[in-house]
Amino acid sequence: MLGAFAEDAAMRRTLPAFALAALIAAPAIAADAAKPQPRKSAQDIIDAAPASDWRDLDPANTLYMELPGGRVVIELAPGFAPEHVANIRTMAKGGFWDGLNIYRSQDNFVVQFGDPDGDEAGKAKPYPEGTKTHLPAEFTRSDKGVRFDRLPDVDGWAPQIGFADGMPAARDPKTGKLWMTHCYGVVGAGRSNPPDSSIGAELYVVIGQAPRALDHQLTVVGRVVKGMELLSVIPRGPAPMGFYEKPEQRAPIVSIKLASEVPEAQRTPLQLLRTDSRAFVDATEARRNRVDDFYTQPAGHIDLCNVPLPVREAK
Amino acid sequence: MLGAFAEDAAMRRTLPAFALAALIAAPAIAADAAKPQPRKSAQDIIDAAPASDWRDLDPANTLYMELPGGRVVIELAPGFAPEHVANIRTMAKGGFWDGLNIYRSQDNFVVQFGDPDGDEAGKAKPYPEGTKTHLPAEFTRSDKGVRFDRLPDVDGWAPQIGFADGMPAARDPKTGKLWMTHCYGVVGAGRSNPPDSSIGAELYVVIGQAPRALDHQLTVVGRVVKGMELLSVIPRGPAPMGFYEKPEQRAPIVSIKLASEVPEAQRTPLQLLRTDSRAFVDATEARRNRVDDFYTQPAGHIDLCNVPLPVREAK
Repeated sequence: MLGAFAEDAAMRRTLPAFALAALIAAPAIAADAAKPQPRKSAQDIIDAAPASDWRDLDPANTLYMELPGGRVVIELAPGFAPEHVANIRTMAKGGFWDGLNIYRSQDNFVVQFGDPDGDEAGKAKPYPEGTKTHLPAEFTRSDKGVRFDRLPDVDGWAPQIGFADGMPAARDPKTGKLWMTHCYGVVGAGRSNPPDSSIGAELYVVIGQAPRALDHQLTVVGRVVKGMELLSVIPRGPAPMGFYEKPEQRAPIVSIKLASEVPEAQRTPLQLLRTDSRAFVDATEARRNRVDDFYTQPAGHIDLCNVPLPVREAK
Repeated sequence: MLGAFAEDAAMRRTLPAFALAALIAAPAIAADAAKPQPRKSAQDIIDAAPASDWRDLDPANTLYMELPGGRVVIELAPGFAPEHVANIRTMAKGGFWDGLNIYRSQDNFVVQFGDPDGDEAGKAKPYPEGTKTHLPAEFTRSDKGVRFDRLPDVDGWAPQIGFADGMPAARDPKTGKLWMTHCYGVVGAGRSNPPDSSIGAELYVVIGQAPRALDHQLTVVGRVVKGMELLSVIPRGPAPMGFYEKPEQRAPIVSIKLASEVPEAQRTPLQLLRTDSRAFVDATEARRNRVDDFYTQPAGHIDLCNVPLPVREAK
């Protein structure tokens, strides 16, 4: 997700023209003085953002998922799912996922991980001490006292969309409810039929077109802020649901640890652009109405799940 | 994309409960007679569709992209991009892509393929005889005389959304223009800055959240109807744009052929559910307002790019 804004310089015919174009943010000499000046690009706006527009990840609410290919960094959302996040922190401290695996990879939908034998008595991995085996459903939260930075764009799934606690979210002013939306990279807690049947042991990550029909039907616990490219390429299991047929096809998880439990020298220090910052608002507008030498017809719209949430290495 | 509707039986806590639930389309004995009966699922509706609701792929407008891991099947859209499709057919017949590669894989965006050296004089692979080296931009078409099956759902990108020629599409009744939308699996023609700089030699496939800001800014030539799971897992190139740094990282293309040029015994006979069929409308409604033991709060909405386009082996 680092530098996701740069995808805009996209779709050129071949590599060399493409790479060159990316280097030229704006023509040094306008070919035609009457032509409207290119606006600042989203990337220009982000690069110029003051340090105060960035926030550090909180190590106590950050998971490091270590895969053989590298580290996936997940920001937990305790404001949205306090009980699930507390339980996940307990399980991570107790090493619950260490040596378990990703047992499902469904194209254009989710990867899912945890204990594939979790429902089988005798085979299920015991939960670490202190793990709660029953939690309330945390599908929505109250919007009282929560800053919600609303997008002006229409959305078919919810009355209002925007950002809260740095997460993509939606709100219903009639009910006063707020919830995280199932955008690419969002992490949720799998459950059985009863709404209160998730405890955070089995988690899924969205790897395709936002399945927003899941919104406020499951407890969402956070989102991947780095390393999505490790999860999104995991070979798909057979259709329709992507569960692997053989245990050896599952993708191993080395460990999942809280960043706060990892020695500081081994951490991945990241910063996120605050979703309530001027730079974020301006960069989103630059995406919504992109005008440059390539994109000549501004869309005048952006979908909530198309808004990049910029991440950078901590400075 | 086969059986994509089944993704609904999703997000259960663990595999066994999940697999079991998938087998039980509706409870044999209602636990509570007062409870509303589960509606027919999208899959039930599709399974019950008459043969006339299905159409065969046209071999003359179908590409087989052979990768080391298997075959990707692309349905071309001559109604939307007649000149590009004609050129692509010429290039496929001439074996243009055989031995070339996928040279870009950008997470949550696109894979792109063709000749990575296409802009370098002396290194570029010559186009097959008959290939046109200049084409008009085909970003939109006239909606005159084209059947457009409109979705009732709101969309922020276009005045009207729906399907035409079996492809996801949008329409502006004020201008009378119709265009294909950049949904997951859609195939477009990369270009340079001039709108008429694509000829269909360099193609991209959407592998993430629909980048609808690209709509009517590039020529869309078709969509992948089978084998997306081969394209979507191609290792990502480095951020921000996913071009590989080293030629050996590129994913090889064995060949791209027109289905009509492949002996019949080696074809992949597929059928697509007609987007103007009753079954398609009803299945989409079942997704829009899903109610069962798991999904208790119907969304009342579906995004254009969340509507599955069912594919099956020809019967």
